[in-house]
Amino acid sequence: MAKSPTVKALFFDMFGTLVDFRSGVARAAEQLLAPRGVGLDWGAFADAWRGEYQAGMEQIRAGREAYVRLDVIHRRNLDRILPRFGLAGLDEATRAELNLAWHRLDAWPDVPPALARLRTRFWLAPLSNGNIALQADLARHNDFRWDAILGADLSRDYKPKPRLYRDAAEAFGLAPHDCMMVACHSSDLASAAALGLKTAHIARPDEHGPGKGERAPNVPVDVAAADLIALADALES
Amino acid sequence: MAKSPTVKALFFDMFGTLVDFRSGVARAAEQLLAPRGVGLDWGAFADAWRGEYQAGMEQIRAGREAYVRLDVIHRRNLDRILPRFGLAGLDEATRAELNLAWHRLDAWPDVPPALARLRTRFWLAPLSNGNIALQADLARHNDFRWDAILGADLSRDYKPKPRLYRDAAEAFGLAPHDCMMVACHSSDLASAAALGLKTAHIARPDEHGPGKGERAPNVPVDVAAADLIALADALES
Repeated sequence: MAKSPTVKALFFDMFGTLVDFRSGVARAAEQLLAPRGVGLDWGAFADAWRGEYQAGMEQIRAGREAYVRLDVIHRRNLDRILPRFGLAGLDEATRAELNLAWHRLDAWPDVPPALARLRTRFWLAPLSNGNIALQADLARHNDFRWDAILGADLSRDYKPKPRLYRDAAEAFGLAPHDCMMVACHSSDLASAAALGLKTAHIARPDEHGPGKGERAPNVPVDVAAADLIALADALES
Repeated sequence: MAKSPTVKALFFDMFGTLVDFRSGVARAAEQLLAPRGVGLDWGAFADAWRGEYQAGMEQIRAGREAYVRLDVIHRRNLDRILPRFGLAGLDEATRAELNLAWHRLDAWPDVPPALARLRTRFWLAPLSNGNIALQADLARHNDFRWDAILGADLSRDYKPKPRLYRDAAEAFGLAPHDCMMVACHSSDLASAAALGLKTAHIARPDEHGPGKGERAPNVPVDVAAADLIALADALES
């Protein structure tokens, strides 16, 4: 068994890794729209919304648009997909409310107890593309206790741009090798590793629906864990 | 009695307002240096160190130097004052350790219980010139529970530059008038008010030693409170 890497700070991807966005967005959409007589495949609605995610950020990563927060991108993407579901006429107030679904996502069940354990040994911070207000809402909703909120708003850019990982380490005054990126997406971990951070992959096989998520990393990582409890076990060993 | 202002987020100055930096720095210096045979007026040493604070930030505010974190400025200022106290030869490790005194300051006694009350009603965040690592250490040391860490590292500049107050409101997706700056320094509150934030002054008459601190604001404020408990009372009324 390889020796566990020694690090001082853990940086977490949020959507998919810590919170179950697909179920949460699908449920919020159903709760808001079903009483208005809308019948949809709610999972497909969540998939369509998330499906616009990368393209929305790419404008900013590529420098074609000045930084705007993920809340703004989520809202644009909602406006883009509504016509596909016959909802082109949805009113402004409902759109605004629906956009807050991303602020109220539930954590996967392993996350809260694992974070409580990890907090006794490490700095803990989200390193997410979600903006500060969104992260603060998720933290209140799930009782996450962070040492800081890092990521897109701090760096005014989006993962996987190198700047976000570098800014995160520097915010804690740490060398990259003293930090570990924790994510369920191999692409995020590859970018973190390229900057010298340690990496931990969390399996989320149901991220995009049953059986539709990364069961294992497809890049080299320092730790590959079945869930966040398994990561805590590995880092304590 | 005027009606209390209605706000959604409270932003806190840290040094002086929430933590007693003069006693903390003086004590840390004594604990570190007295065993080496150094005898000093420890309060005067703390005053001298803090006395370099504004000049160190002014280089960056004025655009004469790219942003560097307050930890770096504190260290430069320490190196600057040591010769005045006959300590030009102090070794590197002790200087580095002494610089961490700012990370381990104790809160004024009214602060922890007041923050716990305020947290049930408002977003709470430091809006300080202290960098993220420093704020995270102070939060762990004093069990502060923040929704985010705003301020210098987020804005890459120093108060009282307007950008810091504007960035803080925007981080929470709030209009300035939905935010309140809480500080024991009238200058900080004047700058926040100029951007449209509400303001609360906390009396810290002993900030710079007994009787050497602002007993009352010298600018118009929305609330003037004797301590943080009194602010919580005012905002709940």
